[in-house]
Amino acid sequence: MVPGTQPVLALSGGVGGAKLALGLADVLPPGQLHVLANTADDFRHLGLDICPDIDTLLYTLSGRANEAQGWGLEGETWQAMAALEELGGDTWFRLGDRDLATHLWRTQQLKSGMRLSALTAVLAARLGIASHIHPMTDDPVRTMVHTTGGDLPFQHYFVRDRCEPVVTGFSFDGISAAHPNREVMQLLQRKTFGAVLVCPSNPFVSVDPILQLSGMWLALRESPAPVVVVSPIVAGLALKGPAAKMMAELGMGVSALDVARHYCQRYPGLMDCFVIDESDATLAPEIRGLGVEVAVTATVMKSREQKRALARFTLQLGGN
Amino acid sequence: MVPGTQPVLALSGGVGGAKLALGLADVLPPGQLHVLANTADDFRHLGLDICPDIDTLLYTLSGRANEAQGWGLEGETWQAMAALEELGGDTWFRLGDRDLATHLWRTQQLKSGMRLSALTAVLAARLGIASHIHPMTDDPVRTMVHTTGGDLPFQHYFVRDRCEPVVTGFSFDGISAAHPNREVMQLLQRKTFGAVLVCPSNPFVSVDPILQLSGMWLALRESPAPVVVVSPIVAGLALKGPAAKMMAELGMGVSALDVARHYCQRYPGLMDCFVIDESDATLAPEIRGLGVEVAVTATVMKSREQKRALARFTLQLGGN
Repeated sequence: MVPGTQPVLALSGGVGGAKLALGLADVLPPGQLHVLANTADDFRHLGLDICPDIDTLLYTLSGRANEAQGWGLEGETWQAMAALEELGGDTWFRLGDRDLATHLWRTQQLKSGMRLSALTAVLAARLGIASHIHPMTDDPVRTMVHTTGGDLPFQHYFVRDRCEPVVTGFSFDGISAAHPNREVMQLLQRKTFGAVLVCPSNPFVSVDPILQLSGMWLALRESPAPVVVVSPIVAGLALKGPAAKMMAELGMGVSALDVARHYCQRYPGLMDCFVIDESDATLAPEIRGLGVEVAVTATVMKSREQKRALARFTLQLGGN
Repeated sequence: MVPGTQPVLALSGGVGGAKLALGLADVLPPGQLHVLANTADDFRHLGLDICPDIDTLLYTLSGRANEAQGWGLEGETWQAMAALEELGGDTWFRLGDRDLATHLWRTQQLKSGMRLSALTAVLAARLGIASHIHPMTDDPVRTMVHTTGGDLPFQHYFVRDRCEPVVTGFSFDGISAAHPNREVMQLLQRKTFGAVLVCPSNPFVSVDPILQLSGMWLALRESPAPVVVVSPIVAGLALKGPAAKMMAELGMGVSALDVARHYCQRYPGLMDCFVIDESDATLAPEIRGLGVEVAVTATVMKSREQKRALARFTLQLGGN
């Protein structure tokens, strides 16, 4: 394999996806990685337009992420939140002082009429990122989490309520009217990508919103690039986030096999290869029975080298 | 004198006014001081609703002001501005991290439909301030500074351009449609105040906008409370800010006498007593010739005790 003979498209949510994206950015030539980021987690808070997944990608790919904490910026300070708490303001969603600058700048640009995709490109450039970070759409799409206690906007479920409510389903407000990212759709039409990778992100609230945009998954299926999906479930656990808890509450099994089934049922013919962890190797035959190739490797990405290794592995599968 | 037998109304701009307001708050019984604050300096910046004079009063009266710096909060940090600078955002108006919380909270409340006067009362209460801080109006009034190089919104003139442009005049956009603060007008009608003090604030851009609100200066003149004005010009200099430079550029003399003339000409019969500094004592006869009483004292307020002394002096003149 010669990595990077062709550009690569990676679909990503937040933390888990950003880890693989960082590995990909490391091993591909500069500018060859295109990340298509979930924006259904976005929300307005304190009057600010906040894009958690895009920001995690921006901070991770620019080397600014707080890896120990798993979110936010390294060396972040919290003076604004402390003062806001004194004033009785909403502080359940913790916005660091430096992080606030991102939201202030974005909110201002959106108000002045700039599209999210254009301003995200400017942010990435100013943070020194060579990769392309594309919001899945410039239109508002908002995940609603249906729970036994009623519907919750995603961040209320995820952050404020710490994923405690029992999930019964999801919907993506605005998705039927949302146009998928124009630039990515054009690149797909021009057969630009050598591979399409689905990062180990939450299938329900990170990847589904991207794939369910009008025309998106069919465009990916019709593209000649192989579609390689990395399982976010390892040994029956989600490495990060509520994916496993959601699967259990939805009455699904909690395994890489169930993730593969989800993708095969909802997006028939989309996935060419499913990457599972070594600890799940025994599931391979059953997953192959769904009609997809299976590749087994170490998928847990703690170190930078583990991120690069998984990136190289998935790129090879993509024939890149 | 028994301070505080009746409530006192103080008209104030930012730093200079807030110093006397702090002295007044110290010597009056809790809750007896009402400050009517200029809001014509307010502006939207980075999508935030910023009220510089109100905030200076909030921070000063709550003991949070950075006295050495002359503006902002003690112990403030600047992480958000540093990050915004990296992103290429506007940083000419320096918003500290803790200060940002005030603007975020205010902007959110205004968007939700709360009036500026109501939310300012909440802010003051949450900061532990016993005095009442009233915005001069809930309606938008914006000072435009006319200069030889064209018109400038106040903060662009004051902060971004460091008061360098040569001033030819001022106007207050929105003032004819703005309703003066309802609560203060009601208190005036009920003859609640024992004295009205005009703090040593800039006559042109801090006090004029308050007095020129519909019905305001006439209501003050008709109130039985004596109106005592403290000169912001001492020995031909403005202690803080561009008042002296403005007077020179407008072709006026630069002295306490010229300030007195300004008030007497624009608001005939309003001022009962004019307080000048000891260093300007020789101007007293000519000021008396304008038909106002003159009181001479030390008006420079560096220490807390100097603030209290000037507060006591002005209250005695007000017969309070």
